[in-house]
Amino acid sequence: RTLRIGLIPGDGIGREVIPAGRRILEALPASLGLKFSFIDLDAGFETFKKTGVALPDKTVDTLKKECDGALFGAVSSPTTPTKGYSSPIVALRKRLDLYANVRPVKSVAPTPAFPDPIDLVIVRENTEDLYVKEEKTYDTPNGKVAEAIKRISEHASSRIATMAGEIALRRHRVRNATDGVSGKQATVTITHKSNVLSQTDGLFRQTARTALEQARFRDAGLVIDEQIVDSMVYKLFRQPADYDVIVAPNLYGDILSDGAAALVGSLGLVPSANVGDGFAIGEPCHGSAPDIQGQGIANPIATLRSVALMLEFLEQEEAAAKIYQAVDENLSEGKYLTPDMGGKAKTEEVMEDVLKRM
Amino acid sequence: RTLRIGLIPGDGIGREVIPAGRRILEALPASLGLKFSFIDLDAGFETFKKTGVALPDKTVDTLKKECDGALFGAVSSPTTPTKGYSSPIVALRKRLDLYANVRPVKSVAPTPAFPDPIDLVIVRENTEDLYVKEEKTYDTPNGKVAEAIKRISEHASSRIATMAGEIALRRHRVRNATDGVSGKQATVTITHKSNVLSQTDGLFRQTARTALEQARFRDAGLVIDEQIVDSMVYKLFRQPADYDVIVAPNLYGDILSDGAAALVGSLGLVPSANVGDGFAIGEPCHGSAPDIQGQGIANPIATLRSVALMLEFLEQEEAAAKIYQAVDENLSEGKYLTPDMGGKAKTEEVMEDVLKRM
Ligand SMILES: CC(C)[C@H](C(=O)O)[C@@H](O)C(=O)O
Ligand SMILES: CC(C)[C@H](C(=O)O)[C@@H](O)C(=O)O
Repeated sequence: RTLRIGLIPGDGIGREVIPAGRRILEALPASLGLKFSFIDLDAGFETFKKTGVALPDKTVDTLKKECDGALFGAVSSPTTPTKGYSSPIVALRKRLDLYANVRPVKSVAPTPAFPDPIDLVIVRENTEDLYVKEEKTYDTPNGKVAEAIKRISEHASSRIATMAGEIALRRHRVRNATDGVSGKQATVTITHKSNVLSQTDGLFRQTARTALEQARFRDAGLVIDEQIVDSMVYKLFRQPADYDVIVAPNLYGDILSDGAAALVGSLGLVPSANVGDGFAIGEPCHGSAPDIQGQGIANPIATLRSVALMLEFLEQEEAAAKIYQAVDENLSEGKYLTPDMGGKAKTEEVMEDVLKRM
Repeated sequence: RTLRIGLIPGDGIGREVIPAGRRILEALPASLGLKFSFIDLDAGFETFKKTGVALPDKTVDTLKKECDGALFGAVSSPTTPTKGYSSPIVALRKRLDLYANVRPVKSVAPTPAFPDPIDLVIVRENTEDLYVKEEKTYDTPNGKVAEAIKRISEHASSRIATMAGEIALRRHRVRNATDGVSGKQATVTITHKSNVLSQTDGLFRQTARTALEQARFRDAGLVIDEQIVDSMVYKLFRQPADYDVIVAPNLYGDILSDGAAALVGSLGLVPSANVGDGFAIGEPCHGSAPDIQGQGIANPIATLRSVALMLEFLEQEEAAAKIYQAVDENLSEGKYLTPDMGGKAKTEEVMEDVLKRM
């Protein structure tokens, strides 16, 4: 089978890590029976500066019509307000209805601060909340006032919670298969701020709960937990090993996933996948990192894991496992670490080491 | 001089820590020439259950007309949606126009994870953002949809940034007085998400910047920095020692301050003050903690520090310093630690130790 993969490097180190993502796909063993074809696509602030559009229609159309999945690098935000510019990744998630942003966070090794292994997934709603970007500004006698809409729907809350439940059960099956009988129960923690936002976050909370109380989750023993977002951040830093799957509206999910990344040492390790029905875009959680761009020292691990995550959602679990394993081996050995992890290795050295293990 | 202090214990452990706050005020040395009178006031979920109102008008009126400052404990949120209930602390902040929520976070001692001392303040806008609680719910063919307004004004953004600038300069003066020439510059980091919310967070960012560029700040060498909120959370956990004063809209400030509390070991240590022109309410950052309520093991430190913080904003710096010192001595010795800090001490034992040092 041939999978057609769109490659959208974007800006900054996105251009250094996406080629690494392509190489790992090409290095998958022939025995898996998978082939890949690649289509280069534009988006980002550079694209905006050249063409006046950050996300060309051609990119969206090609993804829709010709691709099975894609890899997205990173985009730079303009440092001063720029008329007409709007984040292409936010637009892409909406236009392809990639309604879930899945962000697994896993520790490499115990540290003094976190002796217990961290292995959690943040499942972030990806299409609404404040990201609908419906804003207006008006003048008052007391100066300017701006308003934004935070929108939460039953529809989106239900499907994201359902996906979180499914991920929790899948993880539980994998844990059981690996550990024999695993003590950890499949748990989804619903994050919200319904003590202040009783209608919007109240709807998210209630809908997520209803979705997770479906018979197929209940019968499988899924535990439903909840945390107010501020307390969630606190607990995440105090007892990260306690969490399994965390489901959150868009903005809280954005904040929580950067926070969780800090726990495991570097954003350069943390992958994500933007997932819709039958389509997935892998995307490293780090940004375009203009400070290190062009130096060949970007950490490719987040991208490699994002490739694996994309493959999981395209139902290529075996290929995904192969990549995870090569990456984990590289990290456990710890010989080739990029500067974000306190090492001196170049992107290329990490890649050679990982590819050797494929 | 007699200061009239309203006491609003609220729910749960609020009722155990607010009496501790009163005792520390009564223990201030007579040489300071300060007297206190106390007025007990109601608010909270218990009050709501008894009277149908979570924040009685009488409480607000008494604070306005008869008090110089106040202490607020904590409130429980109902665990299921409860018609007519609305958080009394959020209402109180708005009705008294306590426009700043000031949350200093300071480490007790270096830890393996954070070898450098953490000493930062989060200055949280306290009256608007999503906390305006303007929400509506409507039906669509696809299910329910709820919307909330996030409102950001030039007026509120400007005054909160100005307060952040003043706090940064005051801290800098204190540091210089203590350390001789301190290497650390006075810095305010503006937190926002203007890469997505270009109008609302864009207005916050731009207005804060303008306020901090005022001549009196520039002449004093104040450094203006900024961070996108997700990146701020990441950096807060990776390099907390790098930060001085962080100014943020209401919701980000809420999340960041719980996050920062996790860095220094326990929410039970972290104070706050709700500050308006000429009025301040001290409030521990922890909640009502129903799980430990009634056991006499609540950590009183956050409240004692909140008392000191309130006194600072009532321009009683000497009295404040006295309390901070007694608390710091207690913590450095580390002999009486409540369970949240890994110890076995009771509230009463901590209090006796701190009072002894007054
Ligand atoms: C770049 C930005 C618009 C984006 C977001 O907020 O979603 C990023 O922070 C992310 O998490 O992918
Ligand atoms: C209890 C809740 C309404 C409150 C808030 O969100 O402001 C609390 O979290 C706080 O930080 O004081």
